[in-house]
Amino acid sequence: MSLVVVGSVALDSVETPFGKKDDVLGGSATFFSTAAAFFTRVMAVAVVGEDFPEEHLEFLRSRGVDLEGVTREKGRTFRWRGKYTFQLNEAQTLDTQLNVFQDFRPKLPAGWADSDYVFLANIDPVLQLGVLEQAKKPRFVACDTMNLWIDIKRPELVKLLERVDMLLLNDEEARQLSGQANLPAAARAIRAMGPRSVVIKRGDAGALLFHEGGVFAVPVFPIEDVVDPTGAGDSFAGGFMGWLAREGNTSPATIRTSMIMGSVLASFSVEDFSLDRFRRLDLTQVRERFAAFADLVHFEKIKI
Amino acid sequence: MSLVVVGSVALDSVETPFGKKDDVLGGSATFFSTAAAFFTRVMAVAVVGEDFPEEHLEFLRSRGVDLEGVTREKGRTFRWRGKYTFQLNEAQTLDTQLNVFQDFRPKLPAGWADSDYVFLANIDPVLQLGVLEQAKKPRFVACDTMNLWIDIKRPELVKLLERVDMLLLNDEEARQLSGQANLPAAARAIRAMGPRSVVIKRGDAGALLFHEGGVFAVPVFPIEDVVDPTGAGDSFAGGFMGWLAREGNTSPATIRTSMIMGSVLASFSVEDFSLDRFRRLDLTQVRERFAAFADLVHFEKIKI
Repeated sequence: MSLVVVGSVALDSVETPFGKKDDVLGGSATFFSTAAAFFTRVMAVAVVGEDFPEEHLEFLRSRGVDLEGVTREKGRTFRWRGKYTFQLNEAQTLDTQLNVFQDFRPKLPAGWADSDYVFLANIDPVLQLGVLEQAKKPRFVACDTMNLWIDIKRPELVKLLERVDMLLLNDEEARQLSGQANLPAAARAIRAMGPRSVVIKRGDAGALLFHEGGVFAVPVFPIEDVVDPTGAGDSFAGGFMGWLAREGNTSPATIRTSMIMGSVLASFSVEDFSLDRFRRLDLTQVRERFAAFADLVHFEKIKI
Repeated sequence: MSLVVVGSVALDSVETPFGKKDDVLGGSATFFSTAAAFFTRVMAVAVVGEDFPEEHLEFLRSRGVDLEGVTREKGRTFRWRGKYTFQLNEAQTLDTQLNVFQDFRPKLPAGWADSDYVFLANIDPVLQLGVLEQAKKPRFVACDTMNLWIDIKRPELVKLLERVDMLLLNDEEARQLSGQANLPAAARAIRAMGPRSVVIKRGDAGALLFHEGGVFAVPVFPIEDVVDPTGAGDSFAGGFMGWLAREGNTSPATIRTSMIMGSVLASFSVEDFSLDRFRRLDLTQVRERFAAFADLVHFEKIKI
């Protein structure tokens, strides 16, 4: 099944208690594509500037990511600079330079309009809607968003939500969007706005999925050496959508398994800076961590 | 198997966004005993003042809690007053009156010294050690603690930890005790201090168990109508130790199942003020929620 992602390709500068990296490969479409590519072919729509190193594009291509939708525009690549303290839970953004991303008007290349699976990473909901208008009849559309859009583009976001199958957002965003402090209540309110499935990402507290198959709780895989949480959410989405596209069905059972695949990929992404852990990751390690995840939550179904 | 708890019996005054209750039944030994009593007989060691309503003792007795270890002393009962805001995650303590609890020197009644299972709720580690010196050869000792004791009685706490099988504490306390920000690293450091098992309670992010059976992650059961989180941790401990004592073995598998039973009881305790949800709880509902817990984390073990 064909999978399209629309998002950012960036150069990140990150500081954590474990080191400091400047101008390394980042961006939502980048983490998403690399994670999803463990399971399926990915087509990426994004924009880079004149300064973007060709080797990064080569890396993505080597993973089977189709970059026909990535354009190179006059100007500099989108840059983000952030810092994490010891708790490693939330980044402090020090600087954002939109650069060529400022004028990003995502356009699906010819032949991509009939894609089955579409992921709209966190960009302006107007652009997300624009992508959906180019897509013919996708089987499953998931989107991410953030507090900024809930604040300043709520009507556009609400219009988008009527057309997506799944919304992924963090707990504070879920509360802000729904006006409900309680997460199950927030998810119920958001599902009433359109998406059949809502994934609430809770950082190191894991994720909750609310869908027609009930509630599904996924813990974060306990990692002793978390080096850099940047991209964990997009890696989660990539693992999720990649597995879903590979399985080719959107049953509640497959959605649950895809949540675990997302968590597996996210757990690897935080083990090094940028996408570096993915560079030395293979399917055997993915398989082993999936099994470890099963063990992490296993208990015997006894009779009381 | 015989189960002893040493802790507090209190009169709580609690304010949450959903209401306000004054001088209602509370205390660690109370929540613990009532939760554990769903599975096994419990023997409680605590102290109350002259003002403590007899009806509360009658309630505990009606649940099969042996109160021979609860003494009534001259003075007023331990009182706690707290408040929760909408996030309901952490109580703000408004007032603590130790009263008769100030001079609490827990004493096991004759015949209780050969108890198999012992839970030392959060009290001064000197008193917790004192209880262990009265116990002959318990099969499994678990204890709770708090930031205060880590601050002011670390040597005594460290001495206690050499003698317990399991320590339950929250994430901040685990970091404080171990000097490690990362939770798996913190658990490893704490296990090196003595307890074979460490349970890190993370409020609405669930709990993590680190033990010889690996790591076990338990989510919080999503409850739409959380009314009052007071006592959730002690209800967890009660469900946990109650099931463990009922099963009569401390294998890794039984410890995992006991963690779920603890979570089940905790999930009920927050649905009303004080112990009120327990008053109308029966074993059928416990059984149903255990099954719902199994569904909450269920996913298919597929082949990649």
